[in-house]
Amino acid sequence: MNKYFNIAIVTALSVAITSFKGNAMSDLSQYVDPFIGVDGGGNVFPGPCVPFGMVKVGPDCGGKDWNAGWDRDGNIHGFSNVHVSGTGGGCKYGNVLFAPITGNLDMQDYSSPRNNEHVALGLYEVDLKRYGTSARLTALQRSAMHEYTFPASDDSKIIIDLGSFLSSHERQYLVGSEVRIISDKEIEGYTRVRGGWNIGEPYTVYFYAVFDTPSDDCGTWKSHRVEPGKREQYDTSEPTGAYFSYRTSDKQKVTVKVGISYLSTGKARMNLSEMNSWNFDEVRAACVSRWNEILNKIEVKGSDEQKKIFYTALYHSYLQPVDKTGENSKWISDEPYYDDYYCIWDTFRATHPLFTLLTPSKQVDMLRSLLDIYRYEGYAPDARSGDDNGRVQGGSNVDILFTDAYVKGLKGIDYELALEAMIKNAEVSPGDDERKEGRGGISDYNEKGFVSTKFERAGTRTMEYANCDYAIATLARGLKEKEIAQKYMERSRNWQNLWNPDVESLGFKGFVWPRYSDGSWWSENDYSVFQGGTWPDFVYETFSWELSFYVPHDVNALIEKCGGKEQFTRRLDTYFSHEKWDQRWYMGLFQISNEPGFLTPTLYNYVGRPDKTAEVVRKTLKERYNTTKEGIPGNDDSGSMSSWYVFHALGFYPNTGQDLYLISSPTFEEAVIHLENGRDLSIKAKKASDKNIYVQSVKLNGEPLDACSFKHTDIANGGTLEFVMGSKPSKWGTVGVENQL
Amino acid sequence: MNKYFNIAIVTALSVAITSFKGNAMSDLSQYVDPFIGVDGGGNVFPGPCVPFGMVKVGPDCGGKDWNAGWDRDGNIHGFSNVHVSGTGGGCKYGNVLFAPITGNLDMQDYSSPRNNEHVALGLYEVDLKRYGTSARLTALQRSAMHEYTFPASDDSKIIIDLGSFLSSHERQYLVGSEVRIISDKEIEGYTRVRGGWNIGEPYTVYFYAVFDTPSDDCGTWKSHRVEPGKREQYDTSEPTGAYFSYRTSDKQKVTVKVGISYLSTGKARMNLSEMNSWNFDEVRAACVSRWNEILNKIEVKGSDEQKKIFYTALYHSYLQPVDKTGENSKWISDEPYYDDYYCIWDTFRATHPLFTLLTPSKQVDMLRSLLDIYRYEGYAPDARSGDDNGRVQGGSNVDILFTDAYVKGLKGIDYELALEAMIKNAEVSPGDDERKEGRGGISDYNEKGFVSTKFERAGTRTMEYANCDYAIATLARGLKEKEIAQKYMERSRNWQNLWNPDVESLGFKGFVWPRYSDGSWWSENDYSVFQGGTWPDFVYETFSWELSFYVPHDVNALIEKCGGKEQFTRRLDTYFSHEKWDQRWYMGLFQISNEPGFLTPTLYNYVGRPDKTAEVVRKTLKERYNTTKEGIPGNDDSGSMSSWYVFHALGFYPNTGQDLYLISSPTFEEAVIHLENGRDLSIKAKKASDKNIYVQSVKLNGEPLDACSFKHTDIANGGTLEFVMGSKPSKWGTVGVENQL
Repeated sequence: MNKYFNIAIVTALSVAITSFKGNAMSDLSQYVDPFIGVDGGGNVFPGPCVPFGMVKVGPDCGGKDWNAGWDRDGNIHGFSNVHVSGTGGGCKYGNVLFAPITGNLDMQDYSSPRNNEHVALGLYEVDLKRYGTSARLTALQRSAMHEYTFPASDDSKIIIDLGSFLSSHERQYLVGSEVRIISDKEIEGYTRVRGGWNIGEPYTVYFYAVFDTPSDDCGTWKSHRVEPGKREQYDTSEPTGAYFSYRTSDKQKVTVKVGISYLSTGKARMNLSEMNSWNFDEVRAACVSRWNEILNKIEVKGSDEQKKIFYTALYHSYLQPVDKTGENSKWISDEPYYDDYYCIWDTFRATHPLFTLLTPSKQVDMLRSLLDIYRYEGYAPDARSGDDNGRVQGGSNVDILFTDAYVKGLKGIDYELALEAMIKNAEVSPGDDERKEGRGGISDYNEKGFVSTKFERAGTRTMEYANCDYAIATLARGLKEKEIAQKYMERSRNWQNLWNPDVESLGFKGFVWPRYSDGSWWSENDYSVFQGGTWPDFVYETFSWELSFYVPHDVNALIEKCGGKEQFTRRLDTYFSHEKWDQRWYMGLFQISNEPGFLTPTLYNYVGRPDKTAEVVRKTLKERYNTTKEGIPGNDDSGSMSSWYVFHALGFYPNTGQDLYLISSPTFEEAVIHLENGRDLSIKAKKASDKNIYVQSVKLNGEPLDACSFKHTDIANGGTLEFVMGSKPSKWGTVGVENQL
Repeated sequence: MNKYFNIAIVTALSVAITSFKGNAMSDLSQYVDPFIGVDGGGNVFPGPCVPFGMVKVGPDCGGKDWNAGWDRDGNIHGFSNVHVSGTGGGCKYGNVLFAPITGNLDMQDYSSPRNNEHVALGLYEVDLKRYGTSARLTALQRSAMHEYTFPASDDSKIIIDLGSFLSSHERQYLVGSEVRIISDKEIEGYTRVRGGWNIGEPYTVYFYAVFDTPSDDCGTWKSHRVEPGKREQYDTSEPTGAYFSYRTSDKQKVTVKVGISYLSTGKARMNLSEMNSWNFDEVRAACVSRWNEILNKIEVKGSDEQKKIFYTALYHSYLQPVDKTGENSKWISDEPYYDDYYCIWDTFRATHPLFTLLTPSKQVDMLRSLLDIYRYEGYAPDARSGDDNGRVQGGSNVDILFTDAYVKGLKGIDYELALEAMIKNAEVSPGDDERKEGRGGISDYNEKGFVSTKFERAGTRTMEYANCDYAIATLARGLKEKEIAQKYMERSRNWQNLWNPDVESLGFKGFVWPRYSDGSWWSENDYSVFQGGTWPDFVYETFSWELSFYVPHDVNALIEKCGGKEQFTRRLDTYFSHEKWDQRWYMGLFQISNEPGFLTPTLYNYVGRPDKTAEVVRKTLKERYNTTKEGIPGNDDSGSMSSWYVFHALGFYPNTGQDLYLISSPTFEEAVIHLENGRDLSIKAKKASDKNIYVQSVKLNGEPLDACSFKHTDIANGGTLEFVMGSKPSKWGTVGVENQL
């Protein structure tokens, strides 16, 4: 810990430091590189924002069809204030775009090539070659600061484009926009957009901006008609925008503060009150301090390279969802309100469990917000963005989050209501749009015990519904709802209904296989265990070979189905080593780039082979994660890839919905997790290194641990994990995973 | 036609007069009494508005729990700018309330008793006793004028309450509000409300108001905290409001123009540009002239009393839906946009067919708007309000409107898309909320051929779905989609699946009867043909005796089921004469106060007994309609009761979805309908009087008409209907209804 953060600024900015109880907080921001994972399909958002920040300010590049706005190539159009991070599918957001230009405003194309692009935590800076201008950006929760530097020019301008937004397939569409220049230093307006990845209803981004320098001139536009001097453009469904003009001396700076709201321009102005300084560095420091609160939850002893990957991964995990408490345009409630669950299908596996470990109060807030969505809109969603539910890819995995919170002892959640919401998911068809919320194909699943290929994603749905049903059973049992528990425990075995024992591949028999509505299997001529899929297919972002490992709630039954432990181990070996596909994305058949394989490496623990878990995990950490722009194995998916890294770097991984961590292979000799309740979880891994990847022995809270798993509830009030590592597999862990029930 | 309207004003206000081709338009406004039907359950909105006007400005009274705002009793809180007319169920709207007060603002209760309440077309006026103030209101399409008169006072105020709205059961809830005083004569803001009758998503009513008199002081409030001098209240989910203060001399007037928008305050200001005069009488005259365009579509020769009922009924028919073209906050489209279909289950029967007859271009616009809703939101709805679909009471009756337009030759509608939307209704379950859109219970209906009592409203749904299926078949046949036509023609006979031939009542056998999911009938101990119902029941706003007449598309098959013509005639006789229930609401079993019985009087025509049709219709017109505040038999239901009157007063009634009018008994000796295409339909009824109610003979376009029905397409290009009336039944019409296929 080299540098100490300037506490004076932090205090001045009223940021509460609770995690370190009086100790100075380390400045870990040096280990966060916002450019890690922005490229090569990672789609990480590289711009400034605070944890769960509503404002994410950054450049929109190229064809404005990149999920996070940024692209390696292409011109920069300007800097919009709302983005998502790490998503795939169609774009969302990219609203309220500012840009510093000089000379005539080219309405056809005002974009510019870039120079000197640089990012750091809470900072994005770049030069716009076309104009000789440059920009520095930083952000707080609901506001952004844009600091623009101009050349000497009689015709410098800052433009505000309300007709600009990101769009690719699953398009966004403009619904309307409006702009009003209030004074020579103030402007407000909104942009209303519908569509995008979740095919959502319209959302409206309101803004209020205040400039430190009075403009010499101003004007507005509607569609392509620029109207100098006109200070207002009403909403007539056409794109609008405005500009402020300045006569600038060389290197003259103009700073803009932008408040953002989903309610109104007035609320946007109020939101801007959080930014009480005009000093860019001070504002950035406040942003950084918010991150240091999160980053300092974990102290590790490791190389700078290790720390850079690790802390950047931790940072990625806290980019989404977005805290919009007080910004809900749909109902009034005292509950917290989070949006941009994008989506839980990705994040329930590692990201939310990480919140539960590090910041359980935030996880409780999110689950309360999801229950409030259920209360007012009828479904606790699997995904939500722009205040609208959608899209559901597989199961109703929010179910698993409620149960995960319950078994891990999180307080402050109405679990009775949660059970109601989970049963609603399981029992009530969402109707016309089965991608919006709830469970699709449940008329099949609830009658036949499997989703037939009459419905899309039948394989993924069946396997995930079984796991979700187990979550319902678990919570129901906890709440003493015996009948419900029994019903859903039975249903949790439904995955077996798609298990075709006759299908053979690479020497293994029995795989998840499509069935017709009448119960008959598809012919082997019509399907393959290697066939990938997406929305309309049998499997979603996976294939049968991989999906046939997905029974997180009953791995032992799966092992039996596969012919016992030895056969199962060989099956895993083949999965992780088979040289079939493009090695860029796959290790054997294992694709860490998509979430369905997330849990699979740790399945070795269930057959008492944590040495093999260690090998696969360590290989994945090493080969698939690095400090480059392509340093993440796939779409980060709101931090999912990154959270997977954080857990395994610490040496364990959750099986979400169960009070269970599966031990893999700690990478740091020392790590301390500062729990929210003030206690510490100390993790020591003697001799841990790139070579010493095998656990030789473990003590949990001072007692020898034979199983290669432990419970969250064993460490929730602090504790110690003491590993001894070695370069060879040991006999430790051969007893396997302790029964979590 | 006693008075001639001031053409100068009309021209000055740019109102096009097309219907009379150069002839001076009569001022028929004297025959409109906006107080007819406001009481006794009619729920008609008594305030000023233009045809299909978005702004409906009027008082909110008593507990603010009356559907149209107004109530006979109770204090007046003030005058809000958006209302609906004639609705039942929970309240909707009542937003952006203004009130003229004096003295301290009592935040607990600023309402006042009233004096001298008076209405006329385009005018509402009243004195507020508590304050010694008075108000005159008038309106245009998207703007209202409030003219307030004050006593001499140092503390006169106009308050604007953005936390006020109507609410009863099926409650409305505040989501947020905001207000900003722009100058001493200008103010803007919004109120955002969710819920109400259709349990809708939030809608936001924006306003911009400009006053003719500068205020001496101003202030705002949030919740109950009044803050003098504070000019802005941001949206923090609390109710907000504002006031302007004046030192007034006795009888000093302050006039306010209010622009309303569903998009933004800027658009509200733009909408106000339609009101280019500060002269109250001029603005009112413009409002009246818009109505004269509609009223002059029909000229009649009759008593003043007759005309008053007739023209007020015509006026009621044009209050809703609401033309919000250019005010759609959900998507951009070149299509027209209408909202407040409230609901088609009511209005498809008589109101929309009236639009088709008098103003087909408006009907085309509405159907295009419904198709655009299908295009963007997935379902062509049965009801919609506040930009959100819902609720569906019975069938997907919008299907019948599309077919009605098709068979009547309306151009400009994408009938292929309409067929697609209709099939969507028929085939795709709306899921969780089956009251929102589409058809509920179709898993039953489409598999078993009837909706079982596993689902709510099973009887009403089955009967109406059969009629809707007939509409699909009819349109499909027209579009040469033979297979579709055949499929749905078969399904149109599904009503027979709920016909229980063994149930007997009052000497008649065979009634619509509830069936269990397994196909077995309910026991007669558990149900009764007289049992009424609502949302959760077997029937909706009807009972089996009545519903068993509801087969509009296959009356002949129904007659057979009932045992032939004579038996059917006796059954009708019993229905209209049986003395069972409260005579305030029923004539026999016939309840004109709810729509399911609307068509039944004309069923006599199908058995060649138009004399009995005449008797029932004339009795209903005479006994159930008058010029009092209770002058409508039930909830006007967006003009439904009134449109029923208009048709029957002219002497015929539509069987919607078919090119068919059923002749009843014309009440006017002469009537001329000025069709939109410039042609006239002349209706003469020689000797027509209260006694001469029986048709003796008819000539259609100069040729003798034997059937007691004719086609819309026979008169769509103008024509003549010449009746001879008499005091005794004649032999005319005994051949019955001509086959409409």
